[in-house]
Amino acid sequence: MNYSVIRWLVGWVLSLEAAFLLIPLALCLGYSEPYAVDYLIAIAVTALPGLAMAARRPKNPAFYAREGFVATALSWIFLSLAGALPFWISGCIPKYTDALFEVISGFTTTGASILRDVESMPKSLLFWRSFTHWIGGMGVLVFLLALLPMAGGQSILIMRAESPGPSVGKLVPRLQHTAVYLYGIYLGMTVAEVIVLLIGKLDLFSALCISFGTAGTGGFGVLNDSFASYSTYVQVAVTVFMFAFGVNFNFYFLMLMRKLRSAFSMEEVRCYFIVFVAAMSLITLNLMSMEYGSFGYCLLHAAFQCSSVMTTTGFSSVDFDLWPTFSKTVLICLMFVGACAGSTGGGIKVSRMIMYFKNIGRELRRLIHPRRVTVVRMDGKALDSGMVASVNMWLLAYIAVFFASMLAISLDNFDFTTNFSAVAATLNNIGPGLSLVGPSRNFGDFSALSKLVLMFDMLAGRLEIFPMLLLLRPGTWQKGA
Amino acid sequence: MNYSVIRWLVGWVLSLEAAFLLIPLALCLGYSEPYAVDYLIAIAVTALPGLAMAARRPKNPAFYAREGFVATALSWIFLSLAGALPFWISGCIPKYTDALFEVISGFTTTGASILRDVESMPKSLLFWRSFTHWIGGMGVLVFLLALLPMAGGQSILIMRAESPGPSVGKLVPRLQHTAVYLYGIYLGMTVAEVIVLLIGKLDLFSALCISFGTAGTGGFGVLNDSFASYSTYVQVAVTVFMFAFGVNFNFYFLMLMRKLRSAFSMEEVRCYFIVFVAAMSLITLNLMSMEYGSFGYCLLHAAFQCSSVMTTTGFSSVDFDLWPTFSKTVLICLMFVGACAGSTGGGIKVSRMIMYFKNIGRELRRLIHPRRVTVVRMDGKALDSGMVASVNMWLLAYIAVFFASMLAISLDNFDFTTNFSAVAATLNNIGPGLSLVGPSRNFGDFSALSKLVLMFDMLAGRLEIFPMLLLLRPGTWQKGA
Repeated sequence: MNYSVIRWLVGWVLSLEAAFLLIPLALCLGYSEPYAVDYLIAIAVTALPGLAMAARRPKNPAFYAREGFVATALSWIFLSLAGALPFWISGCIPKYTDALFEVISGFTTTGASILRDVESMPKSLLFWRSFTHWIGGMGVLVFLLALLPMAGGQSILIMRAESPGPSVGKLVPRLQHTAVYLYGIYLGMTVAEVIVLLIGKLDLFSALCISFGTAGTGGFGVLNDSFASYSTYVQVAVTVFMFAFGVNFNFYFLMLMRKLRSAFSMEEVRCYFIVFVAAMSLITLNLMSMEYGSFGYCLLHAAFQCSSVMTTTGFSSVDFDLWPTFSKTVLICLMFVGACAGSTGGGIKVSRMIMYFKNIGRELRRLIHPRRVTVVRMDGKALDSGMVASVNMWLLAYIAVFFASMLAISLDNFDFTTNFSAVAATLNNIGPGLSLVGPSRNFGDFSALSKLVLMFDMLAGRLEIFPMLLLLRPGTWQKGA
Repeated sequence: MNYSVIRWLVGWVLSLEAAFLLIPLALCLGYSEPYAVDYLIAIAVTALPGLAMAARRPKNPAFYAREGFVATALSWIFLSLAGALPFWISGCIPKYTDALFEVISGFTTTGASILRDVESMPKSLLFWRSFTHWIGGMGVLVFLLALLPMAGGQSILIMRAESPGPSVGKLVPRLQHTAVYLYGIYLGMTVAEVIVLLIGKLDLFSALCISFGTAGTGGFGVLNDSFASYSTYVQVAVTVFMFAFGVNFNFYFLMLMRKLRSAFSMEEVRCYFIVFVAAMSLITLNLMSMEYGSFGYCLLHAAFQCSSVMTTTGFSSVDFDLWPTFSKTVLICLMFVGACAGSTGGGIKVSRMIMYFKNIGRELRRLIHPRRVTVVRMDGKALDSGMVASVNMWLLAYIAVFFASMLAISLDNFDFTTNFSAVAATLNNIGPGLSLVGPSRNFGDFSALSKLVLMFDMLAGRLEIFPMLLLLRPGTWQKGA
């Protein structure tokens, strides 16, 4: 393994994070909060080793798959270890494990919280908490790639390891330009949401934090009841933006290139839209039949919750744990479906789901006509068998991690629904689950071991399982292996 | 599609069932129960169409994959439709849907019941109920193959469709002989269990019913509390026999052929044993730490429940729904693992699990060394990629059926644990689940729609998903398609 290139990348990530930490420091000074020294310590502890590691370019820039996965996983772990410092040093979250849980939840855009009372947190820390969503949403390494011309040439491997979805391609021939485009679209849409929310009479601070949470499909809010007390205008606006950030960014890129026909014929985006409308309609009907309120009320909250859960954002406008079981089960299904690949959302991803269903169909045909050759197509192109196999392997690994996690956290003796939905909510990077981790509750009651498992799940979910599994595999670290 | 050969096979199945129904009729007369006429009507309604359909040999015996799946699925459906008649005509189960649920649960060796009070049922019906486990365990079509020399030559397709597990091979060159061997081993082990239970001072009736339930890994008992009130001797004996019926029957065949080394080196059997011991130890430790009783007590009940759940039998010696969550989660994991392929048990099957884990390992190696060629072996032989792909497809279909079922039954508005474990317990052919379908409860409270869905799941579980899915697929019925 080429350790020096990994060291160099992690160093850059830490230096970048130290720079980002200057923003909450400025806010802290602006709001006259008494934590300036704490921020300075955190920045120093992050920047010094970061700069030291980034100072010396690796002699050998050679970079292969293994280095890509390990560098990505380690970058995210160090990013989180450092990002937790302001919460812990300031004493606002007294235990370091809790601070780490909160910030991993932030960077992985999960939005699961251990805080009982969000509103009592200092504003600068609330800002940092939401800002981690924004950084984590598009990916910190992708951000680096946009800044840093890498010599190794194989930096697509990092982008593959960090970006959500089975098929990561370059939008434009040069990878650095692809990263710039992606961040450009991301920034533009975030600014648009801030403006829309300001028009809705939110203050700038709330508008920024909510927009970060939406853009990264994170889910941290600034109020204890998440979105229940905002105006209908804000709820509708956020519903639309959550949905928009769950769309494959290739769609927006094609739109920018004025390739409207290609954009609107993207199978994944069409399917994402259909699933959303179907789920929203089913829940609206279910709520209406249970007399939860008027058609408008049911539709609004069904749309908000579907948009939030499907994109794995995790905001809630009502406590959906109180909904009828059918609606909850629809939401659980959406939790697993997730958003589009190439968006900031988590979950299994719509494109993988399409492949799975198409493959089941093909298998049924094959069973009946064993000798007929059949091909599965997506967006008109035939899927090669290697791609299909690797998408299947991904699901197997996902299921294995899921059950192992559920087993580990069941030692806390909470009920089955809590454990199942806690793992589903973290591994899919959603945030709230059901029962004891429902929208009106939090993850604070879990033991340290369970929190550790759920932190692993959040990182595994964000980095799409394999980079984290590879870290645990002894063979990854063997020389010459 | 060659309908005449399907008609002929279904006819044979019904005729055979009518013959089987003579046994409970005899018991009914022996115990002087007032249901003789009801049995006669049921037998007539089964035998007449059965004989009519079986009378004329199909002109064209040609038989392909499609006919194999459809014949198997339809045979099982007709078998159940007829098998429910005695319960319904006698009025012992007033609703036909409930009677059908009970008998599908019997034939598929699930053991999920809608009966609140088993002990009040007439003995001849209790016998029939348990006997359906025995018939369903090894498969009614495999039984037919043992009797009926088929001309078509392709009858291995039926055996594949009916037998549990991914790889069904012939034990001996002639398929008919294979079927005879399998039923011989099955019968021998059942007789052995009856004798062991008689030594344990059970009456012949109970010994037979329990042995049928164990042999088929079914789970219907003759007492309301399942196994809680039997002696420790009986509990231990049944633990051992449940485990034994979950072993791949190839193991016993190799033993009979005195190929001891090949038998004991079967990877699946070794893995089955290891998983069982691990689960039993974990649950024993968990129960001890929660002070549920002495070491002996905890070990006995941990072993009984693990053996019962892993082989998907579903007997219970205690109400494990009252156990700590960790123990329950271990049991849920066992529910999915299931027994060995080529046994009478259900679930995903140990051999599939081995393939899944080996493939995850290979994928991790492949990610790091993309160009190195790696092969997955089982029992020393390389698995070909077609086999791996089809085992993966099976899991995808399984998951799709699982979530669709959970969504459908959630309309009854029971809690999430109930719904999840009801689907897990039926699709894996176990029987009891957790919460409202736990060992001390039953499936009687579900709506007719939910019962229908769960009946489909039981059949899909027993026939390994695809035959039932193919029935629903319009393309299966198209001419020339």
